[in-house]
Order: sequence, then C-alpha cells, then structure tokens
Amino acid sequence: MSRFFSYKYADLEPYVPGEQPSDMARYIKLNTNESPFPPSEKALSYARANTRSLQLYSDPNSAQVTKAIAGCYNVDPDMVLVTNGSDEILNFAFMAYTDDRNPALFADITYGFYPVFAQINASASKIIPLRDDFSLCVDDYIGLKGTVFIANPNAPTGIALPASEIERIVKADPDRIVVVDEAYVDFGAESCIDLVRRYDNILVCQTFSKSRSFAGGRLGYGIGSKSIIADLNTIKYSTNPYNVNSMTSAMGIGILSDEEYTRANCRTIMENRSFTVDGLRRLGFKVLDSSANFIFVSSDRISGADYYSRMKDKGILIRHFTKKRIENWCRVSIGSRENMEAFLKATAEILSEA
Amino acid sequence: MSRFFSYKYADLEPYVPGEQPSDMARYIKLNTNESPFPPSEKALSYARANTRSLQLYSDPNSAQVTKAIAGCYNVDPDMVLVTNGSDEILNFAFMAYTDDRNPALFADITYGFYPVFAQINASASKIIPLRDDFSLCVDDYIGLKGTVFIANPNAPTGIALPASEIERIVKADPDRIVVVDEAYVDFGAESCIDLVRRYDNILVCQTFSKSRSFAGGRLGYGIGSKSIIADLNTIKYSTNPYNVNSMTSAMGIGILSDEEYTRANCRTIMENRSFTVDGLRRLGFKVLDSSANFIFVSSDRISGADYYSRMKDKGILIRHFTKKRIENWCRVSIGSRENMEAFLKATAEILSEA
Repeated sequence: MSRFFSYKYADLEPYVPGEQPSDMARYIKLNTNESPFPPSEKALSYARANTRSLQLYSDPNSAQVTKAIAGCYNVDPDMVLVTNGSDEILNFAFMAYTDDRNPALFADITYGFYPVFAQINASASKIIPLRDDFSLCVDDYIGLKGTVFIANPNAPTGIALPASEIERIVKADPDRIVVVDEAYVDFGAESCIDLVRRYDNILVCQTFSKSRSFAGGRLGYGIGSKSIIADLNTIKYSTNPYNVNSMTSAMGIGILSDEEYTRANCRTIMENRSFTVDGLRRLGFKVLDSSANFIFVSSDRISGADYYSRMKDKGILIRHFTKKRIENWCRVSIGSRENMEAFLKATAEILSEA
Repeated sequence: MSRFFSYKYADLEPYVPGEQPSDMARYIKLNTNESPFPPSEKALSYARANTRSLQLYSDPNSAQVTKAIAGCYNVDPDMVLVTNGSDEILNFAFMAYTDDRNPALFADITYGFYPVFAQINASASKIIPLRDDFSLCVDDYIGLKGTVFIANPNAPTGIALPASEIERIVKADPDRIVVVDEAYVDFGAESCIDLVRRYDNILVCQTFSKSRSFAGGRLGYGIGSKSIIADLNTIKYSTNPYNVNSMTSAMGIGILSDEEYTRANCRTIMENRSFTVDGLRRLGFKVLDSSANFIFVSSDRISGADYYSRMKDKGILIRHFTKKRIENWCRVSIGSRENMEAFLKATAEILSEA
C-alpha cells in the first residue's frame, strides 16, 4: 500500500479469483466454473459481421444487446442494464442499495465477493448462516431490514431454492430490495425473472460467462423495474459510461441468436454432472445436490486442502476455500465428459494412495 | 430514482457523454474526439489469431497486454495497470486518492467527469480556475493539499503544458499525488511518463481510444510507481477483477505491434488540425492553440449554441457545453481531410446566412 492510499481502505481485503497458472495449458481446469465449450460459430460469425467500427466509441446505452436480452425474457429494454461482467452489476447494486444505514444481508457461505463489495462501499452487512446442511432458511430473512443478496443456485454449494421461496422474501417487505444472483441458473434451477414483472423490489443478475461460454468477453446484466434500472444507470454514468465494448455487445447478440446451442451445452453439462456425482458417491464422497455447473464435494478420507493439492499434482485444478466452515470441501467445475473421466480417475488414484 | 436508492447519491449528477444519435450514419461525427481511421489490418489479424478462448475468463492480471504497454514505455510491468477504458483508471484514482479529508484539485474548465468522480466517491474537491486565456497557472497548485488532476493536453481547450511545468507541481509536494490524464498526448504534447521513473507521486493515465483508433474496444491504462499500481489493483480486485476482456487485450497487443500506423495517423490528424485552424481563423474564429485531436473555437458572429445546432442541421455533429464560462465555444474533433473540408464549408455557409 502506498502512503497516499485513502484511509477508507485501510482494512480492505480484495477478492481472490480462482488461480490462473501461467502454464495453464498443462492443466484440466475445473476451478473457475467456465464452460468447456467455445462460443458457437454462428455467434462468432454474427459478431465478425456486426461489430461497430472500433475507432468509434461503443454505444453507451448498449441499446442493441440490451434489446436482444430484453426480447429473450420478454421484458421492456428499460428493465435491463448490461455490464462489464456480472461482477459489475453486483457492485452497482451494492453501491446503489447498501450503505452505512442500510445493511447488505447475505449468507455466510455464498459468493465470496459479497463481503468485499460491502467493504469497499463502506456498507454495513449482516451475515446469515446457512443451515448445517448448507441449505438457506428463507424465514431467517423475513423481518430483517436491509438489502438481500442471494446467489441462486448458491455458490460454492450449488444448492438452489425454488422461485416461490425467493418470492416469499420479496413479498415479505416491499420496502427492501432482493438481489438474486443467477449466474448459474441455466443448469437446472428456476429463474426469478418472472417475479420482476410482479414486484418492483427485485433485481435479477445474470451472466454470459457460464452457460453462454463467454467468460472471456465479460458480459453481465441485471433485470429489474424501470426505476431500479434507472438508479443503476445513474451509477454507471457516474463511473464508466462506455462500460461494454463493441465487440462484446456484438458477440452477445450473436450468442442470443443461437439459444439452441446454449441449451444443448447446458443439457450436456447436466449429464456430465450426474455422471460425476454418481462416480464420486461410489467413491464415498459427500456431494451436495447441485443445480449449477459445479459440485461441492468432501470426503472423510482426505482433507479439502490435500485433495486440492494432490489433484493439482495430477494436472487437475479444482477450487479449495480456506474458510473454516468449508475447509474440508472442494468445488469442482463440470467440464467435458473426457475431463470428468480424468477427474474421477485421478480421484480414485488419490484415495487408493491415501 | 427508486425509493430504494442510497441517500449517498441524492445530489449525484451523472456524466453526459457526447450525443450518439441512432441515425448516426447521417452525420459527420466531430463530437467525441474519435479517430477517423480504423485499427490497422495488422492489429486486427493479430487479435484474430491470438484471442484467448472466449469460454475461459480473461486473465485478471491482463499480463500480456500489460507487458506490451510496459515495453512500449520502457517501464516495469508492475508499474502499469490496464483498465476498461481510461475512465476506469481515473475513477480508481479518485477512489484511492481522494476522500472527505483529502480533496481532488482540478481546473474549472477540464474533463467534465472529474467533478462526477469526486461526487460519487464522496470526496472533497477544490476547483482552481484557469486564467482568462484558458491556460493553467502552475503556481496555483503549489502549496495546496490534495490530489491534483490535470488533463494534459487539457479538454476541451486542447492547451498543453510542457512536462517541466507539471514536474514543478509534482516536485513541490512529495506527499501529494499528481494524476496526469494524457488521453490526447499523442497529438503534439509532451508526455510525463518520464517523470514516473523519478518521482513516486505521479500517475500518468493514457488510452487507446484516440490516437490508437480503439475507442470501441475500451482500453486505458495508468503508469505509476509500483506502490501506486498496487493500490489501484486493490481497488480493481475489490470491484471487478476481470475488468479487461480477452478480445480487447489481444487487440491492444496488436495495435502496439503497429506503432508506425499510429504515428502516421497522428501526423495526418495534426496536418488536418492545422488546415482546419487556418480555415477557421480566416473566417474570423478564435481558435485556441491545440495539441489534441480537437480544437476549441468561438466566433463573435454566432453563439456556441447556435453554431452547434446549425451545424447539426447541416449533418455535422460538434460538441457544445452549457457551462457559463464556455457557452460561446464549441469543441470540434479533427477528422479526415474530407470531413474537415465539409466542416469548413458548412461553417462558411452558416456565417454567410447569419
């Protein structure tokens, strides 16, 4: 830290992304929940033909990709804001809807960025522990003041709530916003976008990084009432108006024009997930029921840290978190069938060596 | 504004980008200081061949493009941070180095985003008026506490200070940071990057949006001491770690591999600027001496607002600011020779009709 750094950040602990080793090609990468499938040729061709001249600024309203997303979910374009990945829309929501007077409410085990967003925005926060089985108790959120952040499916557990359960939280207090982070919703969970049409106190955030194979392009979005989107636009136009570049916008439209490809990939991931879960359970692992493109796993025979590092020795990256409550668990992204076969084989070897 | 919006933003007035009419193709666009030249074929080919697989996250360290920029200026890669356009690095600098105790110091007539950045970060600010001729008086900054923000060349005036003058500000107080915003430096001004090697209290911000024909790709960067860049990385990793997408990084490297193209375009813009300034002065316009890819102009025969709107009627977009002190001025981006001939012809017509 330099001697100039603002006193406001004295205790700030940044988010730590999943490791990206420089010799990445050596590894089977199951640590950052990416898709094993590239964007489709149809999407790429569309982008090549339709990217706005790069010497011109991107459209600060990102009107065309916004309209394409709105069309996809049958909502008004004024109910959609696109961002530079979904981390940006989440940060905007923390900026807009949490502060020292209005706390952020979120689970103890969830996306690790929420406490960082709360901290950098000097917001109060209240941590609400998950149950012992890592499920979220909706009633814990009823009657609390603050802005609720729920990842659904949750990360790193993969556990999803039905939309009707989230609706109970939304309905319980119309003077409080519920932000539903649906980064992983396309792998078997139920979206809350439908609730946006009936309640004005919900913001649903999604991303092109997972089911849509576009983590490298950085495209996220939020869907909420027009007045919520207007608030978030005020934040955008006060920080980075040209937040989504022209190449990413064009790719976004191309990807949405090929939804069948996205759906087929999601089906494959769900099949590979079942295959992997079955294999791990046969090896005696505990595996939480996942509705995401990753699984959260633990074994009595090896610690989480050892499992992670032994897998890395074998050329397979999975994610281990040092947080006490989950230190014996690892998160494993679901890749191609070949990747998951290699993963199960390596796991069996590690157990037999243990 | 929704009923949920944080009290912190009650008075926030977002930045207003230059207009982007939906029927843009109808206009000669001289209002947002873009390059009239596309990125070179060499840069595009490089990017097509070298973009990381898009289903994978971009490198959060943006190591390769960071290294390419560092090589360009002969500094250590740890002295460079790339961002999603230079607005992002400027916002990071306001976040890191200004607050309620440490004001932002900047001119009354300068990049209009500075007061917005100060406001959204709840920072104190002190406005230091330019002289009557719109030049910046370096002595006004000596002895003041706070973080200095200087656009050099300044916008919208185009006036540049020599690096030795900025060095006086840097040298005067080693406990204060000077941020030099060099978005337009490649059109005839002197960069302060050399000062970064000798002082640890200066941050130089540049962009690929102007001389490098890549406004649509969103790539900016800051160059400063390692501890300054470490601070700004703390901000980045607490807001949006994957801030630069893979396509933009690859294009950035491609563009830097073709510096001769960039330099040739800058020479052409400077020639077209001389041509335009001469033409306007012959028509009786006041034109400030510009070291940027735009000029700031005013005429006794027509108000700034009228000039802007009459030009728009003729299919040419220029930029007019409503701020009192400059309400009789317009900012005109320098485009191709054909564009500037059309611009001068339209100006002559407007004056003859006045």
